[in-house]
Amino acid sequence: MGATFGDKLKITVFGESHGGGIGVVIDGLPAGFKIDTDKVLAQMARRAPGRDKTATPRKESDLPRVLSGMLDDTLTGAPLCAVIENTNTRSGDYGSLLTHPRPGHSDYAAFVKYGGANDIRGGGHFSGRLTAPIVFAGAVCRQILESRGIAIAAHIQSVGSVSDELFDPVSIDGELIRRLNSSSFALIDESREDDMRREIESARFDGDSVGGVIECAVTGVPAGFGGPLFGGAEGVISQALFGIPAVKGVEFGAGFASAALRGSQNNDPFRVENGRVVTETNNCGGILGGITDGMPVVFRAAIKPTPSISQPQRTVDLERMENAEIAVKGRHDPCIVPRAVPVVEAAAAVAIINLI
Amino acid sequence: MGATFGDKLKITVFGESHGGGIGVVIDGLPAGFKIDTDKVLAQMARRAPGRDKTATPRKESDLPRVLSGMLDDTLTGAPLCAVIENTNTRSGDYGSLLTHPRPGHSDYAAFVKYGGANDIRGGGHFSGRLTAPIVFAGAVCRQILESRGIAIAAHIQSVGSVSDELFDPVSIDGELIRRLNSSSFALIDESREDDMRREIESARFDGDSVGGVIECAVTGVPAGFGGPLFGGAEGVISQALFGIPAVKGVEFGAGFASAALRGSQNNDPFRVENGRVVTETNNCGGILGGITDGMPVVFRAAIKPTPSISQPQRTVDLERMENAEIAVKGRHDPCIVPRAVPVVEAAAAVAIINLI
Amino acid sequence: MGATFGDKLKITVFGESHGGGIGVVIDGLPAGFKIDTDKVLAQMARRAPGRDKTATPRKESDLPRVLSGMLDDTLTGAPLCAVIENTNTRSGDYGSLLTHPRPGHSDYAAFVKYGGANDIRGGGHFSGRLTAPIVFAGAVCRQILESRGIAIAAHIQSVGSVSDELFDPVSIDGELIRRLNSSSFALIDESREDDMRREIESARFDGDSVGGVIECAVTGVPAGFGGPLFGGAEGVISQALFGIPAVKGVEFGAGFASAALRGSQNNDPFRVENGRVVTETNNCGGILGGITDGMPVVFRAAIKPTPSISQPQRTVDLERMENAEIAVKGRHDPCIVPRAVPVVEAAAAVAIINLI
Amino acid sequence: MGATFGDKLKITVFGESHGGGIGVVIDGLPAGFKIDTDKVLAQMARRAPGRDKTATPRKESDLPRVLSGMLDDTLTGAPLCAVIENTNTRSGDYGSLLTHPRPGHSDYAAFVKYGGANDIRGGGHFSGRLTAPIVFAGAVCRQILESRGIAIAAHIQSVGSVSDELFDPVSIDGELIRRLNSSSFALIDESREDDMRREIESARFDGDSVGGVIECAVTGVPAGFGGPLFGGAEGVISQALFGIPAVKGVEFGAGFASAALRGSQNNDPFRVENGRVVTETNNCGGILGGITDGMPVVFRAAIKPTPSISQPQRTVDLERMENAEIAVKGRHDPCIVPRAVPVVEAAAAVAIINLI
Repeated sequence: MGATFGDKLKITVFGESHGGGIGVVIDGLPAGFKIDTDKVLAQMARRAPGRDKTATPRKESDLPRVLSGMLDDTLTGAPLCAVIENTNTRSGDYGSLLTHPRPGHSDYAAFVKYGGANDIRGGGHFSGRLTAPIVFAGAVCRQILESRGIAIAAHIQSVGSVSDELFDPVSIDGELIRRLNSSSFALIDESREDDMRREIESARFDGDSVGGVIECAVTGVPAGFGGPLFGGAEGVISQALFGIPAVKGVEFGAGFASAALRGSQNNDPFRVENGRVVTETNNCGGILGGITDGMPVVFRAAIKPTPSISQPQRTVDLERMENAEIAVKGRHDPCIVPRAVPVVEAAAAVAIINLI
Repeated sequence: MGATFGDKLKITVFGESHGGGIGVVIDGLPAGFKIDTDKVLAQMARRAPGRDKTATPRKESDLPRVLSGMLDDTLTGAPLCAVIENTNTRSGDYGSLLTHPRPGHSDYAAFVKYGGANDIRGGGHFSGRLTAPIVFAGAVCRQILESRGIAIAAHIQSVGSVSDELFDPVSIDGELIRRLNSSSFALIDESREDDMRREIESARFDGDSVGGVIECAVTGVPAGFGGPLFGGAEGVISQALFGIPAVKGVEFGAGFASAALRGSQNNDPFRVENGRVVTETNNCGGILGGITDGMPVVFRAAIKPTPSISQPQRTVDLERMENAEIAVKGRHDPCIVPRAVPVVEAAAAVAIINLI
Repeated sequence: MGATFGDKLKITVFGESHGGGIGVVIDGLPAGFKIDTDKVLAQMARRAPGRDKTATPRKESDLPRVLSGMLDDTLTGAPLCAVIENTNTRSGDYGSLLTHPRPGHSDYAAFVKYGGANDIRGGGHFSGRLTAPIVFAGAVCRQILESRGIAIAAHIQSVGSVSDELFDPVSIDGELIRRLNSSSFALIDESREDDMRREIESARFDGDSVGGVIECAVTGVPAGFGGPLFGGAEGVISQALFGIPAVKGVEFGAGFASAALRGSQNNDPFRVENGRVVTETNNCGGILGGITDGMPVVFRAAIKPTPSISQPQRTVDLERMENAEIAVKGRHDPCIVPRAVPVVEAAAAVAIINLI
Repeated sequence: MGATFGDKLKITVFGESHGGGIGVVIDGLPAGFKIDTDKVLAQMARRAPGRDKTATPRKESDLPRVLSGMLDDTLTGAPLCAVIENTNTRSGDYGSLLTHPRPGHSDYAAFVKYGGANDIRGGGHFSGRLTAPIVFAGAVCRQILESRGIAIAAHIQSVGSVSDELFDPVSIDGELIRRLNSSSFALIDESREDDMRREIESARFDGDSVGGVIECAVTGVPAGFGGPLFGGAEGVISQALFGIPAVKGVEFGAGFASAALRGSQNNDPFRVENGRVVTETNNCGGILGGITDGMPVVFRAAIKPTPSISQPQRTVDLERMENAEIAVKGRHDPCIVPRAVPVVEAAAAVAIINLI
């Protein structure tokens, strides 16, 4: 049980890859707020597969249908339910997965948890497709945040061994945010794109996949949100991020690097700037004691390489309880990092709106 | 608001460093379970300051008093409340912090959130002292877990630039776990202790502090616990860990390193071993699709260097809204990593018991 | 925000009467459990309008479509989402309600809460139609309960001044339960039906409506579920019941009548019967100290007369802020009590499954 | 598990009657708010036993000690923990209760739930004494509510067969509220006191007890709080009320009486009065569609007669599994209704603060 996230604004995600449909219920939205649905669709398009040559050639018709909570593009205050129908599914591809779990996938763990009753087709409830409703929810939430001066942007910090520049955590340009928000291969330094694509194509050529890191920044968050202990901003954001399949690490500000620093290096000195308190550096990622300090909230999520690879792998036959081999068929992304960028932004939006 | 953690077993932490007392309420404990209070006190002693020369010379009398939920060392099923009185407090040390926030501390963010009404003495509700009730709760929970064959151990993976060995994530020896559980400077390779202590003493000599990484393993967790999306094991564990002050990053299994791997390297092949399904490697940290896979659950927490350093630092005067300087007085640990080891174990215990 | 109910099994209800559709997400269902969908539809038919001459002549096509969580009638363990499309809606009937709130309806309170942005058509999110997804969720939950020997039945205890017999709270016949479960006008003493229908027709004739009381019993609940304080069985069940529009009172066992009793009359003496502990009477409604005692759980819900009446009523014009008159048009039930019986059973099912 | 109530403001109650102490943690209080502790103690005194001849002659020293969350009577924003030590306990009185459950008490149900491990002395966690921390929490919350113009008052509506007047639900005088708030035998018509006391003394004389009804009103609640479905004001308030031991029924406005009314009688006509929308009657108890409508919120709680009576009663011997007899010894209130009045007010305060 974990379909629901949030206290103040609750999102409940449902669906299985090859079932009737997937979707999300969002409860706690402000009545009377007008939603720009084109912007919502634009965010969903960034995540959708088949838009980019690095991605899977499947075509999903990811157009959400809003069943409730919105009237003439205006939020009614009732729970908003959006449904995305499942079409274009090839169930035949997934036949033997129930007995031969794919390494790195949820197959075996889910088999034990659900006793084999879970819908294995297309990954079922564990499919990356379930991130589409999260992007929808995030796209709605970020419009509300934007109306309060809060912007969210993420970029591909690395794919395999190729890295992008990092955000300047003290000052993030609005122009950069807009550019990243509309990009389907979001990079601060766009000259890295070719190298990254080569890294991805090389993995594809080898029947393999490759992981990466996504860095995300949230600007305009006022100081004073979040709190100590288990209500801290880091805890809330990390829970949202770990809700995204394939995320295996989350760090804020200097994160793991701060462990190697001394306090005199890691502490962010305060300054008065134009009558506002700011910090000179932002190693804390905009969060002190679990509370936002008014600087950009900056964090990174590690995305493991997608486990679906066409190389043969060692697995087990759960029926015969003996060792076996598997070669995953079907159409799979060699790298989900570019498409995961809007998902990370969406999870951030849902988390941040729960903090403020 | 975030004093409460957990669904199935709820812990609610309260207290301020220099108030009347600190403590925890634990709701959902199994009636009839017998608690070994000596073991609880032993865990609390590992966290207590002043036991080790690397730690602050303050002496806390951290003996918890159980007000409810336990009768003759047996759990009654009612909420267990344990209180630790605050003694030995020198309030005089903290006079000007309300106007001169310490860099890297919660002072400024808390000032904005609470409008200056929060108890600033000794860090108040943000004090590391609040981890004592977490260790208490964890010490109770881990006894319940141990009765089900689940053991938890953590070690200092690094302090500054000095590293310990890592756990063998596939197979963790019970003897090692016992040794780590009773150590106040927990290392896999004990020969690293001298180098680490030198790193800490060097920081102390400079009026500085140093951070580190703690690695934690949970063995004996059966496959099938946790779940997809926001109820995933990573999300629950990370929320508990980020409830510990100073934690700035959390990763599971290969974590951030997996981002640089290919799927063929990162995927953990399945094997049948003595009639059980195991994985040959454990890059996923015992968690696939948010669900435990029966292998050890392994994760790491980045601990930032404690922000209290005696070197002069740049800050602001919040009354005059002008730049200022501060030198933090008082007795402070140059490195909290060794004492944070039992806190990470405790947070893991509280998280794991909520998964099963 | 209150679309979600439950801890162990969460239901999230969404929809507006004249929007695209209504539905429910159920999270926490047991994987592998086989659902008898005919039984689900039978329960929904009991609530559906237009089946009975006492009810509104509207015809709803209340066939739910399951989008997820079920494969070949077997629960997959993933959140189950069921959607009921909205058809047959006459929006024209509700034109002036935004400015002229109907007495006894949510119109005015909702206007203040949502600033006029809520969907007023057909009652919007406050429509009795929203109980259809609750009945769906209850119909699924009660099959799970039935597999554990727990049965739920309710009957019309009263409509206006006409009363049915009460349950014998100590011993409720399985045959009676089955009869009530399949009845669309559920009475213990079926000879009262004519009088009740006359009471309803008389109200309809007068352009008026009439309320009633529904009594519900849950048999087979083992002793030991629920708990003290805010997790008590009464609290959980009452929260579910007050989630049904028009419920204005809830009582357990002797309820308000017990307030006039002495302890010696109200206390239920214990007896050993066939090696089991039972009580001779059941004034406590099967709940002591918030915990089930093994006897039938018995409670009653007061249903106010439906506020939609065609008689002219005094209201206000919210635009001009002056007194006004309103005569509610459209097709409305003069008495919703018969149709509310399966809704009360469904709410009970969802509550009980959260207790065990 | 149910020690915790509330979303926005969480209270967590702990303790057992004869353990070390009882208390409450309140999380979510506004920092900087000044608490009048005399007023808090005054509310606690109204509930304390031994102040009135109708009550038990036990003397409790119910002085709460605030461990955290308050500094110089000002809320710090951290969780407030208040502890009441247990003194004056006579454990000897409760010897055989574990094997001979008292009719009407939680003894048997708790025995099954906790397997006999619960602390039976003095009722343990089920003791009415646990309402003292609720009164503390309510006394803090109502001061915050009062600062926003919201007042709460309850009175003894009935004891056995003797009734008080009812509130005029449309207009409740501030003077009356103040008088009720400071009364230890709260009646609208004080001339009924003698008759009620006679009813209570008569029960005491017979070794018996008597129940009653408490009516409560909350004035000054603005329209627009609460919501549809499970977040409705009735659901939240009823869950708080059923957290009070001995409450067996809750109704709002006309409540169960509305079931016998027609819509034309029960609907509350709207009027414009001094530029404000009001209702001419208040049969809905200030709540429409789960949302407050700006009129007084009025509800009633049925309190069963306290089950502790000295008359011999039929019970069972759980060890021998045979019928037995019990005569409850010890000092017990023949009527807890007068002392329950401030508890109902407190539960209302905690519920209302969670709605706004």
